[in-house]
Amino acid sequence: MPPNPDEIARFLDELCAYVHDLNQWGQVADYIPELASIDPAQFGIAVALPDGRILRSGQADVGFSIQSISKVFSLACVLGRIGEQVWNRVGREPSGDRFDSILLLEQEKGRPRNPFINAGALVVTDELLTGRTPAQALSEVMNFIRATAEDDDIHIDKAVALSEAETGHRNTALAHYLRSFGNLHNAPELTLGTYFHQCAIEMTCMQLARAGRFLAHLPGAPKMLSPAKVRRINALMMTCGHYDGSGNFAFRVGMPAKSGVGGGLLVIAPGKASIGIWSPGLDAWGNSQIGTLAAERLAEFTGWSVFG
Amino acid sequence: MPPNPDEIARFLDELCAYVHDLNQWGQVADYIPELASIDPAQFGIAVALPDGRILRSGQADVGFSIQSISKVFSLACVLGRIGEQVWNRVGREPSGDRFDSILLLEQEKGRPRNPFINAGALVVTDELLTGRTPAQALSEVMNFIRATAEDDDIHIDKAVALSEAETGHRNTALAHYLRSFGNLHNAPELTLGTYFHQCAIEMTCMQLARAGRFLAHLPGAPKMLSPAKVRRINALMMTCGHYDGSGNFAFRVGMPAKSGVGGGLLVIAPGKASIGIWSPGLDAWGNSQIGTLAAERLAEFTGWSVFG
Amino acid sequence: MPPNPDEIARFLDELCAYVHDLNQWGQVADYIPELASIDPAQFGIAVALPDGRILRSGQADVGFSIQSISKVFSLACVLGRIGEQVWNRVGREPSGDRFDSILLLEQEKGRPRNPFINAGALVVTDELLTGRTPAQALSEVMNFIRATAEDDDIHIDKAVALSEAETGHRNTALAHYLRSFGNLHNAPELTLGTYFHQCAIEMTCMQLARAGRFLAHLPGAPKMLSPAKVRRINALMMTCGHYDGSGNFAFRVGMPAKSGVGGGLLVIAPGKASIGIWSPGLDAWGNSQIGTLAAERLAEFTGWSVFG
Amino acid sequence: MPPNPDEIARFLDELCAYVHDLNQWGQVADYIPELASIDPAQFGIAVALPDGRILRSGQADVGFSIQSISKVFSLACVLGRIGEQVWNRVGREPSGDRFDSILLLEQEKGRPRNPFINAGALVVTDELLTGRTPAQALSEVMNFIRATAEDDDIHIDKAVALSEAETGHRNTALAHYLRSFGNLHNAPELTLGTYFHQCAIEMTCMQLARAGRFLAHLPGAPKMLSPAKVRRINALMMTCGHYDGSGNFAFRVGMPAKSGVGGGLLVIAPGKASIGIWSPGLDAWGNSQIGTLAAERLAEFTGWSVFG
Repeated sequence: MPPNPDEIARFLDELCAYVHDLNQWGQVADYIPELASIDPAQFGIAVALPDGRILRSGQADVGFSIQSISKVFSLACVLGRIGEQVWNRVGREPSGDRFDSILLLEQEKGRPRNPFINAGALVVTDELLTGRTPAQALSEVMNFIRATAEDDDIHIDKAVALSEAETGHRNTALAHYLRSFGNLHNAPELTLGTYFHQCAIEMTCMQLARAGRFLAHLPGAPKMLSPAKVRRINALMMTCGHYDGSGNFAFRVGMPAKSGVGGGLLVIAPGKASIGIWSPGLDAWGNSQIGTLAAERLAEFTGWSVFG
Repeated sequence: MPPNPDEIARFLDELCAYVHDLNQWGQVADYIPELASIDPAQFGIAVALPDGRILRSGQADVGFSIQSISKVFSLACVLGRIGEQVWNRVGREPSGDRFDSILLLEQEKGRPRNPFINAGALVVTDELLTGRTPAQALSEVMNFIRATAEDDDIHIDKAVALSEAETGHRNTALAHYLRSFGNLHNAPELTLGTYFHQCAIEMTCMQLARAGRFLAHLPGAPKMLSPAKVRRINALMMTCGHYDGSGNFAFRVGMPAKSGVGGGLLVIAPGKASIGIWSPGLDAWGNSQIGTLAAERLAEFTGWSVFG
Repeated sequence: MPPNPDEIARFLDELCAYVHDLNQWGQVADYIPELASIDPAQFGIAVALPDGRILRSGQADVGFSIQSISKVFSLACVLGRIGEQVWNRVGREPSGDRFDSILLLEQEKGRPRNPFINAGALVVTDELLTGRTPAQALSEVMNFIRATAEDDDIHIDKAVALSEAETGHRNTALAHYLRSFGNLHNAPELTLGTYFHQCAIEMTCMQLARAGRFLAHLPGAPKMLSPAKVRRINALMMTCGHYDGSGNFAFRVGMPAKSGVGGGLLVIAPGKASIGIWSPGLDAWGNSQIGTLAAERLAEFTGWSVFG
Repeated sequence: MPPNPDEIARFLDELCAYVHDLNQWGQVADYIPELASIDPAQFGIAVALPDGRILRSGQADVGFSIQSISKVFSLACVLGRIGEQVWNRVGREPSGDRFDSILLLEQEKGRPRNPFINAGALVVTDELLTGRTPAQALSEVMNFIRATAEDDDIHIDKAVALSEAETGHRNTALAHYLRSFGNLHNAPELTLGTYFHQCAIEMTCMQLARAGRFLAHLPGAPKMLSPAKVRRINALMMTCGHYDGSGNFAFRVGMPAKSGVGGGLLVIAPGKASIGIWSPGLDAWGNSQIGTLAAERLAEFTGWSVFG
C-alpha cells in the first residue's frame, strides 16, 4: 500500500535531515561565474499531490537558476504553437554525449539529437523566435511558466543571463555551427541572447513543483497541453533529461525528470506528483548530486517509479 | 475510463485487420540467411492481463526467432545470480549508435554502453558462462524462460544458431575486441557460440507475453526477480531497448520494450499487461515496423503509457 | 636527364592547352559568395627556377584569392617570431578530417591537429595578434609576403573579407569553441576578422611562385627563415597541406604544397622550383581540380617529386 | 657540402655512443609476449649508399622482428602484381588514429584509410592470398625480401607468429570486421595467419638497409618495381608510415620511413641512402624512440631531408 500524504511529509523531513548528515554535496557549476559562488550545502524539496496539497521540506522557498529545466518549458511552448513540425529540426534520441557536445552535430549535419542537449534547446528557442522579438519570445515562456505555476512572482535573473552571455563560448560555437547548417533561422546573437535569458529564470522548489503539475496530469492543474503531448515530453525527459547520465537516472529513479546545472530537478510521477528539488552541488554528469539521491529515495519510499 | 478486456480483445482483432490492410511490412533482416526467407506479411499479438487471461489475435501461435529479446532474459539471469556487480563490466546508458557498432567500444575502452547492444549482451552472456559450460549456461537461460512462461515447449532453433555462427563476422569482431580489452573472460568462440544459440530461441507471441509477466509485476506470474530488479530491467528497456531508435520508441509508445531482428517485440505495461508482438518486417533501425505501430496504437487505445 | 628550362617552358604551354581541351574544371567554392561567381574555366601557372627565371603560361597574371595558402605565410611569421613554442597550442599531425571539422577539436580538448586546418590556422592567427592590433598583425603578414615575393603590389580584397565575415558561421563556431577551451587568447571577433582578411589576400601565380622561393631554398630568394624551419613548413605542407586529401596529393604529386579554396596552389620542389598554380574549380576535397592535375603532370615531366 | 661516406661512418659511431649515454630507451611492446622480454637498451644502424658501401654501427647484425615494416614489402608485392587496383580496397590517407583503431573502419564502411594501419595491411595481405595458399603468399613476400636484400638468410620466427596468433584479439576483431563489410575475401583465419607470419619476419639492420635500396633508387640495387610505384610507396611512408605520429616524424626527420613495434625503422633518402635502424624501446605512438631520434640526427648531419 502506498504511503499517504502525511507519511510522505514525514519522509521528506527525514530525507532533508539525512542529506545534511550525509554531507556529500558535489561541486557547484564553475563555468557560470554567478553560480560558482553558491554554497553547495543546501537542499530543498516540494511535492505537489493530486489533492492540491504541496508538501515541502528544507529550502523549498529559496530561488535558484533553473537553467536547463527551462528547456522543458520552451519545448512545451513550441509544441503548443507549431506541434510535431519541430521534429524536422531536432531529433528525439538520447545523445550519449555531454550536454554541450558539438561532435554529433557534425556527424548529423546540424540536426541536434534531442531538444534537451544545448544544441537542440537552441533550435527550440530559435523556433520560438519565429515572428517574435526576443522580448516577446521570453514573455511567452514566462507567461507559460507563470500560468502553469499559477504564480506571477517568477522572474529572470539578468545578472546570470549577462554572466552567461559573456562566458558562454561553447554555446556561441553551437549557435554558429547550427547556423552554418541552416538550422538556426535567426541571427546567432538573438537566439543566444534569448536562450541565456531563458536559462536564467529563477524559481523555488515550490514554484517548480507547481509548474510541473500539468506534466503529471494532476487534477486541478492548469491544462497547458494535450495529454498526448504531455506524455511525449515525459518520454523525452525519461530518455534524454540528464544528458549522458539519462540511462543511469532512469535506472536509479524510474521517473521522467529534467535537471539544470543550477542544481534544480523537476521530477514527474504521472498521475501522482510533481516534484521540485534543489541542491546546487553537481555530480560528474552535471546533474544535482543530492537532488538525484533524494529523487531515488523518494521513488523507493513512495513506489512512484513508472516501472511498477 | 480504461477499456475492459473484451474491448481490448475486439481492438486487437481490428488492429490485426488494419495492419493487413495497411500492407506496409518493412524489410526482413537479410544478414541472417535463415531469417531472410521469411514472408514479411505476418502479424501476431498476445496480451497477458492481471486476471490471468491472455488475449490474442493473428499469428500469435507461430514461432519466431526472438533474437535480441533474449538479452532481457540473459540479463535477468545474471542480475539474479550476481546482482549489481554486472555494472562493473557494462554500462546502462543509451548508446546513440547502431546495435552492432564497435565505435563507442573503442572510445570507452571495451566497456559497452548497455546490455542491450550486441557488445553489452556478449559481456552478459560471458558473465553467464562463469563457472559453467555453454550447455549449462544455455540451460540456465532456457530454464528461466520456461519457468517464467510456464511452458516447457520452448526450444532453440539450431539451424538459425549455426547460420549466425557462420555469418556473424561483426559479432565475432566485437567479441575479439572485448577480449583485447580484457572484458571477455572466456574464449571468444565459447561466448559467441552461447550467444548465437541464445539468440536462436524460438517462441510464439503467446509464450513471449507469458514470459514477460514477471516484468509487468502481474499477480499470479512466477516471481523471478525482486521488484527493484524488475524496475531496473524495465528502465533499461525504456532507454536502451531499441538501439538508436530507443528515444523514438519511448516517444511514440511510452512503454518499456525490447525488440529483436526476428521481428519480435516484448512490451511491458507495468501493473497492467505483458505483450508479445511479432511481425518480421523491420524499419530503418532494425525494429519491427508493424510491431512498433501496433504497440503505439495499443498504447493509445488502452492508455497504458507509463507517462500518464 | 632532367629537362632544361626551355623544355619546361614548352611543357607549360602544352599543359595549358591540354587542360583547356580536357575541359573538366570542377566546381567553384560556393560558400563564399564573392568566389561563387568566378568562371571555373581558367588556368594559370608560374614556375620560379634557381637561375632566377620565372616560366609562365596561361592566366599567370590574374589575381585570385589565396585563401588557405595564406596559412603558410602566417605560420612562417609566427615561427619566425616565437619559434617552436607555437606547437604548445597546435599539433602537426594530419587530421583525416575536412578542413572545417570541429569534431576532433572536441576529442582533443581544443588543440587543433595542425596549423593548416581552419581551427589550427585560427590559433596561429591568434598567436600573431599577441601584442598587436589586427591592423598590425595583417601588416606583418603582408610585409612578409611582399618581401618574399619582392613585389609591393599585393593587397587584401576587402569585399572578399567582408563576404566571409558575414557568412563564415563555421569559422565563427570554431573560434568560440577554441575560446571555450582557452586556446584563443583574443576576442573571437578580433581573431576572426584578422583571419578573414588574411585569407582574402589577392595574388597572381607569378607573385605566388616568387613568394614561395624561400620555401624551395632557391638561390637569390630573400632569406625569410632558417633552413631548418623551412624544411619543417615543407613537411607540414606534405602531410597536412590538403586536408583529408593530403595523402592523395602526396601520392599523386610527391611535392609539398598548399591549396586554397580560391583554386590556388603553391607547390614546392626543394632546390628546384617554386610553383604557383591557379584554376578555380575544386575537387571533392576542396582542392583545385585542374591545379592538382597540372602539378601531377609537371612532377612527371620534370622528375621533381621529392621521392626520387 | 654534404658529408662524405667516411664522415658519415664516424658520425654513426658517435651516434651510437650518444644514444647509449643518453639512456632513454622507451618501453618495449608488451602486447606481444615474445617481444616483451627484449632488453630495450640496444641500438643498431646500417646505411646503404649509392656506391654500394654499407656503413654500420652498433648491433647492426642482430636479428629483430620487423613487424609492421613488412607492410611495405607486402604492399610492394601487391602493387607489382595487380597494380593500382588495390586502391579499390584501401585508401591512401593518413588516419589520424592509432595503428589498431577500428573506429574509422566503421565510419568508412570497411575501407581502411591506408595500407600501413593494421586494417589496411590485412586487406593487402588478403589480396596477396588471391589464388594462393598462405604458404605460397608468404613465399612470395619472403622471395621479394630476399631478392631485394640479395640475402637468402632471412626467415620467419615462428614462435613470434604463434605468440601473436594467440593474443592478437584486436587484429582478429579487425579481420572479422573487414569481412563483415565484404572487404576480406579469404577466411579471417587464413588472412590473419598469413599476416602474423609476415609480421614475424626477422631481419638485421644490415639486411633491412639492403632490402630498402630499391625504394631509394640506389644504383646497383635489384629493380623490384617501376620508379613511379617506388615514389608512391615512399609517399605513403611519408604520410602514413608512423600511424598517428606520421606528421611528427615527417616534421622531425623529413624522410619517408616505416616503423615496426619490434623497434625497427626503415628510412629512405631517395637517391642517397637506404637506412635500417633498430632499437626496441618505443615512444607513445608505438615507434622506436631512439630509432626516431637517430634518424633525426642523421638527417641533420647529412642534409638528407627530402625537404631541402
